[in-house]
Amino acid sequence: MNMLQKVKTTDVKGAWVDFIHQLQTNICAAIEQLDGSACFTEDAWQRLDGKGGGGLTKVIQNGNVFEKGGVNTSVVYGQVTEAMRSQLNISDEDGAKRPAKWFAAGISLVIHPVNPFVPTVHCNYRMFELYNDEDVLADRWFGGGTDLTPYYLFEEDARSFHQAYKTVCDKFDSILYRTMKKECDDYFVNKHRNNERRGIGGIFYDHRRADEDHGVDFWMNFAKACGNAFIPAYLPIVKKRKDISFTEKNRYWQEIRRGRYVEFNLIHDRGTLFGLRTGGRIESILMSLPPTVRFEYDYQPEKDSEEQKLIGVLMNPREWI
Amino acid sequence: MNMLQKVKTTDVKGAWVDFIHQLQTNICAAIEQLDGSACFTEDAWQRLDGKGGGGLTKVIQNGNVFEKGGVNTSVVYGQVTEAMRSQLNISDEDGAKRPAKWFAAGISLVIHPVNPFVPTVHCNYRMFELYNDEDVLADRWFGGGTDLTPYYLFEEDARSFHQAYKTVCDKFDSILYRTMKKECDDYFVNKHRNNERRGIGGIFYDHRRADEDHGVDFWMNFAKACGNAFIPAYLPIVKKRKDISFTEKNRYWQEIRRGRYVEFNLIHDRGTLFGLRTGGRIESILMSLPPTVRFEYDYQPEKDSEEQKLIGVLMNPREWI
Repeated sequence: MNMLQKVKTTDVKGAWVDFIHQLQTNICAAIEQLDGSACFTEDAWQRLDGKGGGGLTKVIQNGNVFEKGGVNTSVVYGQVTEAMRSQLNISDEDGAKRPAKWFAAGISLVIHPVNPFVPTVHCNYRMFELYNDEDVLADRWFGGGTDLTPYYLFEEDARSFHQAYKTVCDKFDSILYRTMKKECDDYFVNKHRNNERRGIGGIFYDHRRADEDHGVDFWMNFAKACGNAFIPAYLPIVKKRKDISFTEKNRYWQEIRRGRYVEFNLIHDRGTLFGLRTGGRIESILMSLPPTVRFEYDYQPEKDSEEQKLIGVLMNPREWI
Repeated sequence: MNMLQKVKTTDVKGAWVDFIHQLQTNICAAIEQLDGSACFTEDAWQRLDGKGGGGLTKVIQNGNVFEKGGVNTSVVYGQVTEAMRSQLNISDEDGAKRPAKWFAAGISLVIHPVNPFVPTVHCNYRMFELYNDEDVLADRWFGGGTDLTPYYLFEEDARSFHQAYKTVCDKFDSILYRTMKKECDDYFVNKHRNNERRGIGGIFYDHRRADEDHGVDFWMNFAKACGNAFIPAYLPIVKKRKDISFTEKNRYWQEIRRGRYVEFNLIHDRGTLFGLRTGGRIESILMSLPPTVRFEYDYQPEKDSEEQKLIGVLMNPREWI
């Protein structure tokens, strides 16, 4: 990990970076095995112009099962810039407590399957640290989540997906699932589309810091457990739906809904906009965009259709458990 | 124009509103005639919840020549909200000079042709007024522009398009074309894509107010002349290129480039973001998005190809005249 030599390493940081790289390897292997045709290609990249760190972008395209997917890790650091200060709402204290340097490491993935009956999935787990001028840790938080974006609603898939994350959450604190399920429903929202949700949710959380109740180990282990839950939560759904036959009309609907995915990611997603405004690697950030997309003026699904049924749960998120 | 009865009408306002409606009719007729197959459908809409005004959205889809196009007019007004104050950078004066009400009327169009050798075009001409609490006009400005987004570069098309607007500009003031051509190159930029331009430009201007040199008539007549130049500037290019035979590869490239169009409109375009944040009519705002779009990870055109040649002029805007 030579990209880490320039920053003061700690056990927390080292353990987290090891974890995200191992998880990236495991997820890519499981996805390739299930696809049976396409393989991930790798791009290792470094930040330029004195900005520290880099990442490993792994992309799969035109597979049997997966049309486009990216599984990225990044380990990046640098001086706190004004753009970052305003994007992150970092407080503007004077003197030794003023954050001067930052460090972030995370894994982020989006998978767009071929078959419209297989949902798209997104997951992201990250750690962020701030330091003062003397390299003393000033703040550290964890954030992340995993959420599902189906094109057709299979209620049993929604339940099994939510149950997988509820099981993880409950091992840590019985309040977590309820809180983070709501946070997810409140975050992945196309506000400009009358608050239509991007999908049927999952969990989402941010700015989780060590406190009297929960130490840094708690939040690190929680993020690890959520990350490790990805394969057993998502891949069984793919296996169950990937061979359902579909029509041009199903595919058309998938592309219309992918348009909403694009709208959310480019207009609202904090992670995407943060990346674009603070000079992240564009191709890695935008690998989340779906492969083929359709924008049709005022498209309306037929009344009482399966397409309309999906919209119902996107407008009024349900409790799945 | 019953939507205008609630606001204090003036000759300027009335003349401008008449103009944009007439231009909309003329442009739609010319486009339908050239297409020879599809017709525009009309949606007249009113703003709800006590917000004043409405618009007429005209959309053409799946034509022989035009795959998707929208020609919108809107005549809208209301109280100045906080969202608008910050979006428009309206000064925060106290008392009678503080802007309390606004009025806007404009025409906006985007046309996405089927054939990848025919460029996409965008044009927009608008008037904006602010009033104080006593309905006294406090400010008025004009803005607009027309710009071309080719998928393949025909230098003679770029020249004839720019020449059409230079001819209009020169009739008003010899400095206008140079200024507004640069403003266009500086505005339609995907900053997150290393400053790649959306297309080969045209003219763009905003906040043009009456002053000692140029009265309100000057800016109104200029906007009218630019609006009227649309048909003779764009349609001859369509006629010349619409029957060139194209391959799947040409179409693929068109869809990749349409992805960049989506990125600009959703991430950077002030008009789009202003509309989304101030409660504009979503379907009318987003009719600008292309019908079918492709996002591929790290797509690179072949060296010395026609595709690469286009990128050259998008990275380094040229003087066409």
